[in-house]
Parts: sequence; structure tokens; C-alpha cells
Amino acid sequence: MSTSPQRTAPRGRPADPSVEARALNAAVELYSEVGWNGFTMDAVASRAKVGKAALYRRWPTKQELLTNAIAGSKAPDVSLRDTGDLRTDLETMAEGLIGALHTPRGLAELRLQLEAKIYPEILDQAMDPIRSAWTASARTYVAAAVSRGQLPDTASPTLIFDAIRGAIINRFLLTPSHRSTSMLEGRHELAQRVVGLALASFG
Amino acid sequence: MSTSPQRTAPRGRPADPSVEARALNAAVELYSEVGWNGFTMDAVASRAKVGKAALYRRWPTKQELLTNAIAGSKAPDVSLRDTGDLRTDLETMAEGLIGALHTPRGLAELRLQLEAKIYPEILDQAMDPIRSAWTASARTYVAAAVSRGQLPDTASPTLIFDAIRGAIINRFLLTPSHRSTSMLEGRHELAQRVVGLALASFG
Repeated sequence: MSTSPQRTAPRGRPADPSVEARALNAAVELYSEVGWNGFTMDAVASRAKVGKAALYRRWPTKQELLTNAIAGSKAPDVSLRDTGDLRTDLETMAEGLIGALHTPRGLAELRLQLEAKIYPEILDQAMDPIRSAWTASARTYVAAAVSRGQLPDTASPTLIFDAIRGAIINRFLLTPSHRSTSMLEGRHELAQRVVGLALASFG
Repeated sequence: MSTSPQRTAPRGRPADPSVEARALNAAVELYSEVGWNGFTMDAVASRAKVGKAALYRRWPTKQELLTNAIAGSKAPDVSLRDTGDLRTDLETMAEGLIGALHTPRGLAELRLQLEAKIYPEILDQAMDPIRSAWTASARTYVAAAVSRGQLPDTASPTLIFDAIRGAIINRFLLTPSHRSTSMLEGRHELAQRVVGLALASFG
């Protein structure tokens, strides 16, 4: 952390470490609400209560700001634990995903995945770490279960993960807002049912 | 096709039936690209090459325009056929959904589902027919399969449909844009694998 005078900020004031955190939070929140079309440096600055200059110093473009904001908070749905029991771990992951979708971070990630379809040249770069983390988790995880004899070696990591994450996303998208609380409250049971279905073909 | 003088004499000009179709198409396209935050009457009018007055005459608010535009084109992913064979019909539905997601209409519907989470008071109304159609299809369809003895009567229509539609949406969202063509080309096989997994627990 430098205490030397800064170029464009008010002279002599020490750097405020909370500026970065506030800006990244505001960026995630704003993007989850309005998407790329409304994602401007002005709007982030105003929501975060930071100066625009402070934003541009750290992130010269809004792509960089968004990419950092999304990457900064670890994707909850791919942070798998390995307890040695496949079903338990997948249920924990599924339950975490249901919770995550009800946060700005989860919504922002889903929105980014959708909007990368529309603005690939701008947003595919921000999506790449998310895609890679997801694919790597699925592979590592299923490989471990195969090595423990809990899955046959023909099991497709992506198909199993697509079915779990997909079923939860679909249920989330089709649940009216006034039933969000009851979806959250029932997340343990939903996670069990979804994982049960995804693993059913393996006996 | 009218041959009467146009442009400067709006009064008395016969209604142009193509105005409505152009406006609805433009609304779906625009919404799929920019979302609610950029969805304005101005932008729809300009894309559809129709006057703003013509839009407001038909749809007094942008909610009404969007709801009509989305409802106007039938959701491809819920138009099930009933050939008597459950697996074949679900595969046809799944394949249709993969195709639909690669169109503005499919993207617009997915975006609407996401944005209804953020602006429920504005967009839940537009989502209601989509939710109802989806739930009704799942129930009718699974009930028919149960009555033919193709599924046990404990089978959950929503879980089966969530797994199929969800897995496809998840695969779509995680596929980089430069691989869209190959996802489309492989849609028959993907549909088979996803339906196979969703039905695996029923033997």
C-alpha cells in the first residue's frame, strides 16, 4: 500500500483500501440488476460512492472491472468438498448453488453466462475462468469418485454436472419471486432429489 | 399492399398489418440483446422502422409490448408431441429446445426468466404464461406416460422436466460462442443423452 502522493486523487489523502471492495461489490450488484447494457463506470461509481477517477485508475475499462468483480468472489457452486462420499458432496454443492442463486453474485454469474452469448467479443473473456473452473471441478470430482469405485469409468462428468446445476437453475428460473423463500427453505430436499436423479443411472 | 400515397399523409392511411409483426419481432430481438434496462419504445420503433405513435396505439406500455411479443411466438420448448413413446417425444422436445436457445426468441425467454427475478413487480406478469405452459406440459405429458405404464405414478413431472431443460440450458450457457455450431450439430446426440439420464431412475 503506497503512501506516496497520487496523481489524480485529492492530494495527500492516503489510499482507501475499502474503495476497491466497495467498487467490486457495487459492480456485482449493479451488473446482476441491469446487465451489460446498463453497466457503466458512472453507475458503479455512484453506487459504490467512489470517484470515477478511482475506478479508472484500477480498471481502465468496464470489461476489466466486471471480470475482476465476478472473478473476485469465488464461484460458490464449484467449491466442492471431498468427503469421500460422492452423493453427500454433490448434495452439498447443489444446496450451495440454490443459496448462491439467491444472491447478487449468483445472479450476476448467470446473467454473464447469458450475455456472453450476445456479446461474445466483449464478455467471453470474463466467462472463461468460470467455464474452466466448472469443467475442471466436474472432471476432478467424477474422476475421484471413479477411482473410489462409486461411479463407472464411463460416467460423463459434464452430463452429471449439467443435470444437477441445470435442474436447479431451471427450477429457480421457473419459481415465481413470491415463492423464493420456500425454495430456499426446501433447498436440502431439492438438492437430494436432483442429485438422486443425476446419479440414478449409476445404480 | 396499399398503393395510396404514404409517409406524409398519416391520416386516413389504411392500417398496415405488417407493422404489428415487425414491431413484435423487433421487440423480441431487442429484448434478447439488451434486456429490460435497454428495452425502450424508442429503440423498438427504430429497429422495427415503425413510428412510435403506432407502437403506443397498440401497446400503451412497454410491459404490454414485451408480454405480447414473448407470448406471440409460441414457446418451442413446450410444444410437445405425443407419439405414444415417452422417450422419443422427450428427445424431440429436448432437440427443439437446443435449437430454440440459438434464436432470439429462445434467448429472450431465458432472459425474461432471469430478469423476472430482479424486477418481479414488472416482469412476473409476462412470465406467468410461460411458467403455466411449462408446468401444464410437464404434468400432462408425464400423466400420459404413467397411464401407458411407461412411468411409475410416483414420477415427478417437474423433476424430469427440470433435469432435461436444465441440463440443456446449463450446457448452452457453458458452451463458448465459437462452439455454438458444433453444439447445434450435435443436438440429436445431446438430446438422447440428457433424456437418457432423466429417465434412468425409471429403468
